Amino acid sequence: MRREIAQVPRAVERVIGAAPDELRDVADAIRRADPRWIMIAGRGTSDHAAVYAQYLFETHLGLPTGLVKPSVTTIYGAELAWRDGLVIAISQSGRSPDVVAVIDAARRAGSLTVAITNERGSPLASTADWSLPLHAGRELAVPATKTYVTELAVVAALVSALKPSAHDLSEGLASLPDALGATLSQTVDWLDGAGEQAVRDLAAADRALLVSRGYNLATALELALKLKETCGLFAEAYSTADFAHGPLVLAQPGVPTIAIRPDGEMGALVDETLRGVVERGGGTTVIGGTEAADMPGALALTHTLPESLTPMLYVLPGQLLVEATARRRGINPDAPIGLGKVTLTR
Amino acid sequence: MRREIAQVPRAVERVIGAAPDELRDVADAIRRADPRWIMIAGRGTSDHAAVYAQYLFETHLGLPTGLVKPSVTTIYGAELAWRDGLVIAISQSGRSPDVVAVIDAARRAGSLTVAITNERGSPLASTADWSLPLHAGRELAVPATKTYVTELAVVAALVSALKPSAHDLSEGLASLPDALGATLSQTVDWLDGAGEQAVRDLAAADRALLVSRGYNLATALELALKLKETCGLFAEAYSTADFAHGPLVLAQPGVPTIAIRPDGEMGALVDETLRGVVERGGGTTVIGGTEAADMPGALALTHTLPESLTPMLYVLPGQLLVEATARRRGINPDAPIGLGKVTLTR
Repeated sequence: MRREIAQVPRAVERVIGAAPDELRDVADAIRRADPRWIMIAGRGTSDHAAVYAQYLFETHLGLPTGLVKPSVTTIYGAELAWRDGLVIAISQSGRSPDVVAVIDAARRAGSLTVAITNERGSPLASTADWSLPLHAGRELAVPATKTYVTELAVVAALVSALKPSAHDLSEGLASLPDALGATLSQTVDWLDGAGEQAVRDLAAADRALLVSRGYNLATALELALKLKETCGLFAEAYSTADFAHGPLVLAQPGVPTIAIRPDGEMGALVDETLRGVVERGGGTTVIGGTEAADMPGALALTHTLPESLTPMLYVLPGQLLVEATARRRGINPDAPIGLGKVTLTR
Repeated sequence: MRREIAQVPRAVERVIGAAPDELRDVADAIRRADPRWIMIAGRGTSDHAAVYAQYLFETHLGLPTGLVKPSVTTIYGAELAWRDGLVIAISQSGRSPDVVAVIDAARRAGSLTVAITNERGSPLASTADWSLPLHAGRELAVPATKTYVTELAVVAALVSALKPSAHDLSEGLASLPDALGATLSQTVDWLDGAGEQAVRDLAAADRALLVSRGYNLATALELALKLKETCGLFAEAYSTADFAHGPLVLAQPGVPTIAIRPDGEMGALVDETLRGVVERGGGTTVIGGTEAADMPGALALTHTLPESLTPMLYVLPGQLLVEATARRRGINPDAPIGLGKVTLTR
């Protein structure tokens, strides 16, 4: 798992640099199709890449975007009016039968379909009209890390290809590999210093909370899943808005709260949530941007990117935090008990 | 909370019987608008009514349906191409500023907007083009119960008005108040008998799992939130498909798993999940249809309805189970500490 995380900067560099033709072809096909909406299918980790894509598509392309519910097709057998839209499937293995079935149904009903997968020869890649590869290389550890970040990178590169006028995105993407490398170094130092307390707290806990909002809701969701599958923790992620509508009552001593805190207005909303957690006696750890520099124990990443790209940065310290927590708990993070690399659901 | 749950059959009867004109007018407006897609906004409990609506709209109307991410509008200030769609907001209080802001933006951009709320004079009701009332009367207990079931009933009645050819829905709705009444009686007996063990297990636990899939994913999500806000339990709900992609590792002795199990193919998928939980030493409680009759400790409801309407039935035993668990833990279920009735998020 640590090896895969270390490979992220190079893998993302390949995504951004290697296949401009592929991206341009898919972007052209999407422009020709002129979709009115976007739906995205994914399971597990890839579902969190889909959450990121929802925010990025809506903010940058202005198209209402939802998440596919595969059982509507595979179990209830409903036929949807797919034809006005763009349907995207995200899957590391490209093999989950329910996701393949949705893409097949959408394509046959006249929707434009795009697969984002690490396996070029997979059933998903051969079912969709277009396929965009992750260029991630093989991922040996069971918990997905570099395939998650490269899924996000493909999504961001596709949006940038569709909207060349979004200079924040194209410039941010160009500096992303360097930012990822700097983030890894800064995280290693943090884990040797202030971050060690966060590892100790997580290793001693059986429950944890993760909070963020907007683009980085995906980061919170993905790190909660990593804590579950790697460390067996009941770790749950909430948008700070949903958190206020109930789950806040779960905050308490002995239940660490990890906040993903981008700079700016969204960061101020995260701060409100953290105040509520502290009032209830809960301990907090902040992973965020430069504004977090004066927060005790926080990891304040110094490399600045547009908020829309920070989910790729902020997830790395979280992944390394999970990996360190697993080792401290005496778990092999590369092969947690009870999990397989490929999950087939119908 | 118990009083509100007991009022559910009458409240649902009012929804179904009282306002055919209102429903017909809204259905006509939707037909005239001829939307290509549907997006739904809701927070907390109402977000789970939105999940139910997603499944019902897709299976019965064939329109791709997603959930709104309010921060795209309220924080990132993005302008979406709302004009081809139908945007529905669900809110008991009709007052959350982010939900009101989304409806306002969608209506001004040319989308048809509908509010489903218990407060006719609320900002939400006056912002949307159309408003459908819950007819639920005042809900005094902080945890929403009857407003949740009536939100589902309004959604189902609207779909039935939009698709009169769906006889399963119209006939099922007609028998729904009786089915709800019979379910309440059967649940009271169950809680005095086999169900008492489920209350004991939940009262002794600090974590719990809820699983289902399809229409009743909403039921699992809603009961998990009720266990959180009323009993302070880390209770998390998963679709059985997502459960297999990681969270299965959380199942263990001392962590009760509650399965919402409709009869038929979906029930068989839930059974697969339950086998995995039992293999890991976890205890299970099943709330479901007649097929659950021979499962030890299960509540097998005898009143048969189309699966698409069972979320209104199956949630009732769960709400009463939560209420009994709270009391056994020495908590006042009507006013859990740390929660208010109206939550305002931006």
